[in-house]
Amino acid sequence: MKRRYLSLIPFEDALEKMRKTAPSPRKVETVLLDSAVGRVLSEAVYAKFSVPGINVASMDGLAVHSSDTRNAADRSPVVLSDAVRINTGQPLPPSYDAVIMIEDVWEEDGKWLIRKSAAPWQFVRPAGEDIRKGDLILPRRHLIRAIDIGGLASYGIAFVNVLSVKVGIISTGGELVPLGMTPSPEQGVESNNFFAEAYLSRMGATCKRYPLVPDDREKIAAQLLLAVRENDLVLLSAGSSAGSTDYSAEILKDSGKLIFHGVGIKPGKPVMMGIVEKTPVLGMPGYPVAAHTVVREFAARLLEYWGMAPHPTYTVKARLGQNLSSDLGYDEFVPVSTGKVDGRYVVIPLSRGFGVQSALLKSNGYIHIPSSAEGLEAKQEIDVTLYENPSFMERSLLMVGSSDTPLQILADCMVDKNITLRCCPTSNLGGILALRAGICHAAPVHIPILKDHTIPDQLKAQKGLSIRRLVIAEQPFGLATRNAVRLEDLKNLQIMNSQRGTANRLLLDAVLARDGIPVSALKGYENELKNPDMIASNISSMIADAGICTQRSAANAGLRFLPLGIDAYELVMRADTLEDPRVKEMIEMIQSDEFKERLVQNGGFDTGSTGKFRI
Amino acid sequence: MKRRYLSLIPFEDALEKMRKTAPSPRKVETVLLDSAVGRVLSEAVYAKFSVPGINVASMDGLAVHSSDTRNAADRSPVVLSDAVRINTGQPLPPSYDAVIMIEDVWEEDGKWLIRKSAAPWQFVRPAGEDIRKGDLILPRRHLIRAIDIGGLASYGIAFVNVLSVKVGIISTGGELVPLGMTPSPEQGVESNNFFAEAYLSRMGATCKRYPLVPDDREKIAAQLLLAVRENDLVLLSAGSSAGSTDYSAEILKDSGKLIFHGVGIKPGKPVMMGIVEKTPVLGMPGYPVAAHTVVREFAARLLEYWGMAPHPTYTVKARLGQNLSSDLGYDEFVPVSTGKVDGRYVVIPLSRGFGVQSALLKSNGYIHIPSSAEGLEAKQEIDVTLYENPSFMERSLLMVGSSDTPLQILADCMVDKNITLRCCPTSNLGGILALRAGICHAAPVHIPILKDHTIPDQLKAQKGLSIRRLVIAEQPFGLATRNAVRLEDLKNLQIMNSQRGTANRLLLDAVLARDGIPVSALKGYENELKNPDMIASNISSMIADAGICTQRSAANAGLRFLPLGIDAYELVMRADTLEDPRVKEMIEMIQSDEFKERLVQNGGFDTGSTGKFRI
Repeated sequence: MKRRYLSLIPFEDALEKMRKTAPSPRKVETVLLDSAVGRVLSEAVYAKFSVPGINVASMDGLAVHSSDTRNAADRSPVVLSDAVRINTGQPLPPSYDAVIMIEDVWEEDGKWLIRKSAAPWQFVRPAGEDIRKGDLILPRRHLIRAIDIGGLASYGIAFVNVLSVKVGIISTGGELVPLGMTPSPEQGVESNNFFAEAYLSRMGATCKRYPLVPDDREKIAAQLLLAVRENDLVLLSAGSSAGSTDYSAEILKDSGKLIFHGVGIKPGKPVMMGIVEKTPVLGMPGYPVAAHTVVREFAARLLEYWGMAPHPTYTVKARLGQNLSSDLGYDEFVPVSTGKVDGRYVVIPLSRGFGVQSALLKSNGYIHIPSSAEGLEAKQEIDVTLYENPSFMERSLLMVGSSDTPLQILADCMVDKNITLRCCPTSNLGGILALRAGICHAAPVHIPILKDHTIPDQLKAQKGLSIRRLVIAEQPFGLATRNAVRLEDLKNLQIMNSQRGTANRLLLDAVLARDGIPVSALKGYENELKNPDMIASNISSMIADAGICTQRSAANAGLRFLPLGIDAYELVMRADTLEDPRVKEMIEMIQSDEFKERLVQNGGFDTGSTGKFRI
Repeated sequence: MKRRYLSLIPFEDALEKMRKTAPSPRKVETVLLDSAVGRVLSEAVYAKFSVPGINVASMDGLAVHSSDTRNAADRSPVVLSDAVRINTGQPLPPSYDAVIMIEDVWEEDGKWLIRKSAAPWQFVRPAGEDIRKGDLILPRRHLIRAIDIGGLASYGIAFVNVLSVKVGIISTGGELVPLGMTPSPEQGVESNNFFAEAYLSRMGATCKRYPLVPDDREKIAAQLLLAVRENDLVLLSAGSSAGSTDYSAEILKDSGKLIFHGVGIKPGKPVMMGIVEKTPVLGMPGYPVAAHTVVREFAARLLEYWGMAPHPTYTVKARLGQNLSSDLGYDEFVPVSTGKVDGRYVVIPLSRGFGVQSALLKSNGYIHIPSSAEGLEAKQEIDVTLYENPSFMERSLLMVGSSDTPLQILADCMVDKNITLRCCPTSNLGGILALRAGICHAAPVHIPILKDHTIPDQLKAQKGLSIRRLVIAEQPFGLATRNAVRLEDLKNLQIMNSQRGTANRLLLDAVLARDGIPVSALKGYENELKNPDMIASNISSMIADAGICTQRSAANAGLRFLPLGIDAYELVMRADTLEDPRVKEMIEMIQSDEFKERLVQNGGFDTGSTGKFRI
């Protein structure tokens, strides 16, 4: 069948081509001072007048001739014959050259006495002290900050000329619906346009989102032609249908010039750039995480090169929590959670799935693996680009392990304590390893409990690690099916299993062991689902007939449920971190009535053991 | 005369009182997603549906039953009898559980052949992979970032509920005019309201500037009463007239409750806080730099305490360039220029004048001297709060010395080389000391040149410091007077002198020495003006009759000018820094025709020696 290969060019080469073929449009717009923050001056700004305009008093007191005061002393006060009452900010009358503070003036018989001489120009703000007429206030390309606004107003600047970049954003894709409509299960909400607008407008660009275009080559081409005429840069977000990015490339070739198509970056490999009617066009894949990378690494870089304001970011050195593979020849960008554990910055990579936009929302930064690296090794110190001030991490807790609703509820509750919970979803074992490696504060895990049967405890095997286990919530665990069944029927059903180490798998194994059912008797035992949360939806969509999940999952998927045991969601912590004030506050929260009530309300969890230490 | 003393309370106590008496208004507003960046969520946001809604293909290819593919191998291809063509993003038809990439499918006689088995769920994005219906997307109090917008749109969030704070800003002062009007020399432009709005609205507050109120107690009180009813916080900026802050305090007492008046901070000592009809009111002094400090250290802190977004700042450790005195008992805030010299961060304090707002515009950060410190010592490592990413300093040059127009022009020219010149105005000697201490890249100095007479060279005395001197610009230097004079008339005139070490003073001394005029013969020789730029304006305002200044200054002040010598404006650099690429680019710029042309156009400077090394 038809194979589509892109001949990829290196990331740096693509950036170089982009800069060379897309010089700054050098356009200017005039904005009112009160909307100037975040914009970049297109030309130097000069003071319209001097400030102060003339010599003024900087204290309340008397304007004097300093020469009249020369002999004043404590024991020989001088009576001032020529002095004028003056207040702070008032102009010094001509020929006067000093001000005496009101506190140093005595009034006797209607006359003013002083006991200290005045130096020439004391307590006088000379004309032009702050700025002189014609002085350069701020140079070209200065990013206007909030702190500049007062000065600009003082110096008479009511309008400023700033760099102007118009960005047109076109989304295509028949499977998309506009924000506000509820998509059917096969559809998605058009979101790349909202993200691109939010990201680029914060750099000072004026963005225009065009109406969603269906996957129709003629219609896309027509929209693009309109957009290149109205803008200085156009972003074209492809749909996810077959050949959708090919449409973009063909349109760019036909309407103008295709500069590159396919770059050695991940995500975002199918990115392309062209010039249509002198306007640069960036074509990006429809997957949100890929589109995000193209907006940040191409569109934003181009705007920055054109002089627009960069997004504020922070850089820290942090210890990588786990090995991270990467392909040679690809510049890879990975969203991460960064935290401070035991006084050191640590960084946990989040999902790299092209469609897992939630990883971006969970992240507080990203790492860039250069194309020359074949991945990074755990414990390596690496540079992390952060979106937030590193000092915020003093009030954050990093959680690595099995993610579930009670943890989200806990994160929301902890807000009142001014503590941010950063949750990095992985497996039970992943969490325990992270705890052992000292790269998280706590590991949330799912522990299966079967009445009258002991399930081997994974956590007990952690040698040299003194741990405590706090119950967060419990819920019934059992067999989900479309039709009513008894446990004995299991052998006749196509089942869906979970990976080793998951609570679902452990429970199933324990039930089989208890009841003496051999594994070989089950159909589909070897079908492992990476994400056990998906078991219920696989049964409802008839891919399997039965599987282990929580009562809640089964109910949500409209399935029948045969309870077998308990799923205990617990927080594993190192014994020595229980003294950390943030951890203490978290434990207090878990033990609070407020948290238990939210657990019941938001998910019907069993809170009988919530807040109790299992060990 | 009446003495007004404030009983100051410590800064920390004032903050504590403010927080206790002004709890969060806890108000909420609903905003459209496209104006949500920078706002803070008032409540957790939950996904409206799962994404993807059902299992979808993550590659273009064939949807298959993985069990059908089990025996496929290179040497034993399998013909697929039940497979469906599927594209990326399309829903997997019910019962299919894997996708085979199009690149791995061969078409023969209208049949599909594969040579590799498919693992269950390969290239399938399971329903809910990104997010599940009801999942918590972002917790309460999350500051919405541009990178969150795509996800929120994808998950169906068209509106968000965010914290809402309304801030009313009242400026008073009969000496002020609104921005847009040209003030007379005794007036100033109302600017604190613009600054406060710019600063607080970037934190997510909605600000309202009320019309300027004259210094009239009844009118101010009436405006305040209106404002407290319309807002959650009111800022009242006092005029600079006598007792203007007393008006504020009296109004607060009469209309509500005065919580504090007078705090141990500099600038901003007269700050006050009150509660009027349950709304907190912050009263701030009219001086822009003081008002700036009150907005940042009180209003912004209160908003942050209420959960609003802080301004992004950066912290670095830097070496202090000079001793910095400070009064015990005062928390002092000083605007600074920070740069990187010889690989180390250095920090130069800028003017602390309450009226010198230009110091804020020149600054890239500030330092906080705690009340327990009696100043800071030169070379001390101190914490600097920066407004900009420290990495920008790799493209900055720090200039300490005599500031003048040609340096401003140079700064504007260097923008094209992507290099920022940060200019810290001080004296010739201050610049040389900074160069010696390694806390600047170059020192701009004014050197007087008298024909037929050698002026002692201050710079030659720099032992152990190998320096180079590059001419930036030259201009005629001489005697400015209101009426035409000859040099012989000098003895009959009241002169205005400059401080030791200034070029003006050196030129005057050299002329006197050359012509055998004793210093004692001059009236006013001992009257030293700190800022020699002000000499001309002092003569035009009849405080003195004559003084040394440049032809340009004399012309600007409408004075007559008797040329005596040349004012050479030069850049002193350490010989070893000439290899620094940024310094090289600056030297190239100084030697360019572009720069020389701008010098002629913008100020009529003599460029005959511009770009030549004096030594």
